[in-house]
Amino acid sequence: MIKIALDVMAGDKGIDANINGALSSLDGSFMVSLVGDKNLIRDKINQSKNQFLQSINVIDASSVISMDAKISELRSDRNSSIYQGLSLVKNNNADAFISIGNSGAIFANSLKVLGRMQGISRPGFAVPIPSINGMRILIDGGANADAKVENYLHFALLGAQYYESVFKKINPKIGLLSIGSEPSKGNQITLEAYKILEKNCPNFIGNIEGTDLTNDVDVDVVVSDGFTGNVTLKSIEGLAELIKANLIQESQSNLMAKVGLLLLKPSIKKIYKRLDYRQYGAVPLLGVNGLVYVGHGKSDFNAVENAIHTAVQSVHENLFASLQQSIDGTRNN
Amino acid sequence: MIKIALDVMAGDKGIDANINGALSSLDGSFMVSLVGDKNLIRDKINQSKNQFLQSINVIDASSVISMDAKISELRSDRNSSIYQGLSLVKNNNADAFISIGNSGAIFANSLKVLGRMQGISRPGFAVPIPSINGMRILIDGGANADAKVENYLHFALLGAQYYESVFKKINPKIGLLSIGSEPSKGNQITLEAYKILEKNCPNFIGNIEGTDLTNDVDVDVVVSDGFTGNVTLKSIEGLAELIKANLIQESQSNLMAKVGLLLLKPSIKKIYKRLDYRQYGAVPLLGVNGLVYVGHGKSDFNAVENAIHTAVQSVHENLFASLQQSIDGTRNN
Repeated sequence: MIKIALDVMAGDKGIDANINGALSSLDGSFMVSLVGDKNLIRDKINQSKNQFLQSINVIDASSVISMDAKISELRSDRNSSIYQGLSLVKNNNADAFISIGNSGAIFANSLKVLGRMQGISRPGFAVPIPSINGMRILIDGGANADAKVENYLHFALLGAQYYESVFKKINPKIGLLSIGSEPSKGNQITLEAYKILEKNCPNFIGNIEGTDLTNDVDVDVVVSDGFTGNVTLKSIEGLAELIKANLIQESQSNLMAKVGLLLLKPSIKKIYKRLDYRQYGAVPLLGVNGLVYVGHGKSDFNAVENAIHTAVQSVHENLFASLQQSIDGTRNN
Repeated sequence: MIKIALDVMAGDKGIDANINGALSSLDGSFMVSLVGDKNLIRDKINQSKNQFLQSINVIDASSVISMDAKISELRSDRNSSIYQGLSLVKNNNADAFISIGNSGAIFANSLKVLGRMQGISRPGFAVPIPSINGMRILIDGGANADAKVENYLHFALLGAQYYESVFKKINPKIGLLSIGSEPSKGNQITLEAYKILEKNCPNFIGNIEGTDLTNDVDVDVVVSDGFTGNVTLKSIEGLAELIKANLIQESQSNLMAKVGLLLLKPSIKKIYKRLDYRQYGAVPLLGVNGLVYVGHGKSDFNAVENAIHTAVQSVHENLFASLQQSIDGTRNN
């Protein structure tokens, strides 16, 4: 039976969001190992009347890596819920690990406990982005602050295979995030990355600009260094919030607008749901030796539930094996 | 009398948007030199009944640097409207130059014709960003694809002085665009830039994340390398377009939403006007030896008119002298 390890100690909403998300995800077809303070977890679970409690395991991990932990503290604690959860995957006691905690700590511990996938220089976060043509992914969403040129190729290969597996599209199109569509536009490293992608990826369509990320462009996988990727993703998240706040603010100014907002509310909700990280639950860290998902610190129980379903689905579909096969295939060519 | 040089050959809307923008900006208190194909300009002007035609000068420049010019072509043509317009500034025949053309060409020719401001390593574009707390600026919006660590300091100094002059706020707050608020977060170059900004800018507030760009954070000037800055600015432009397209699309699905959108339209227009580059007309290239403004290729005549008024205002207020004083003051400390 599929087994998912969930770090319950992380996230802004605390242990409740994680445990409630886990409980409401259950349908008897998979197991969830809750990793964290045993006593706290037991207390919560004992209050639950969930009919699938037999699908829950508890793994004790007494300490938490905080969101503002120093870099030196990220991977030093073997009792942390992140380290313990990843160890379950390492020892084949879980098929995937999910945490909505410190993404730097999850990244560092994933490298330490699981290591990199064979043939991969650096793992990257594959983050979904809604566009006018449907979903895209951006990789790397911020696992690595600095990228080397070979990382771009590995992000492209991992991202394309992931997109193919999850979004069921054969030979997804790969674009390089840059500052102009011409091959001559870019900074030093993207100019080099362009050449490598062009040489190695038959579905490479060239540079795409920031506006193209969400616009009508035929691209599925957008490759970026983690710094640019992270700033970009957070910037569009911020702008969506600004527009929403402005809509509410402006509609206060007169009755017509107030009524308008009321009538348009279901549409706005739908749009913002598409923009919302919670719909996807968590994003995969691609390129480590195992399935690892990282959720937004703001995740509520819904997001955690979705994350568990995403992970279960990926295990079902042998995502990890297809990623490894894809990389092996490229290396042997 | 103040004299503004305008490149009329550039932009998606062609010569008309530029000339109409220039004509409608006139009030007899300043001159505009239209730089471009003499005959084309004369034709247009002869059709005009504008009462301030005596405020117009025509400077012949027969060639245009196209938007997809190769890097080698950017600064090779002395007959281009960009080169000729900048030469007017260089020779004190104009107080500022405006173009909605190829920003790479404007940048390259500005360096060639005007040179850098004393004490400045690299010039940068200062782009306005609306936030929940009012206007901010981001510098560099894309003049330089690669940044050296000293560039960040110069962007900060230029940006702060510009913000102070234009937005009338003493000692504006400076933030560094990065991937986490802690000083330890960032890529190699922003980690170094952090230290230099902390040491040299009393109003440096530290790192700000992508979400903070438009959110409720006490920052006025956001410093970034041009690559990240450009991708970020274009990404939020793209997302704003996506939300608008989605609103229209969703509202088609039912009558209530359609009526809602209709009632909310004035508010939406107001919000999008704030997000719109046209409101600002053009952004300054700070750090070159003269006032240079670059507009969006999509600029219409309104944007050109606003750009001219912005430039006139800056000349009035001695923006260039105050920028130079600010840099000199820092160098002598």
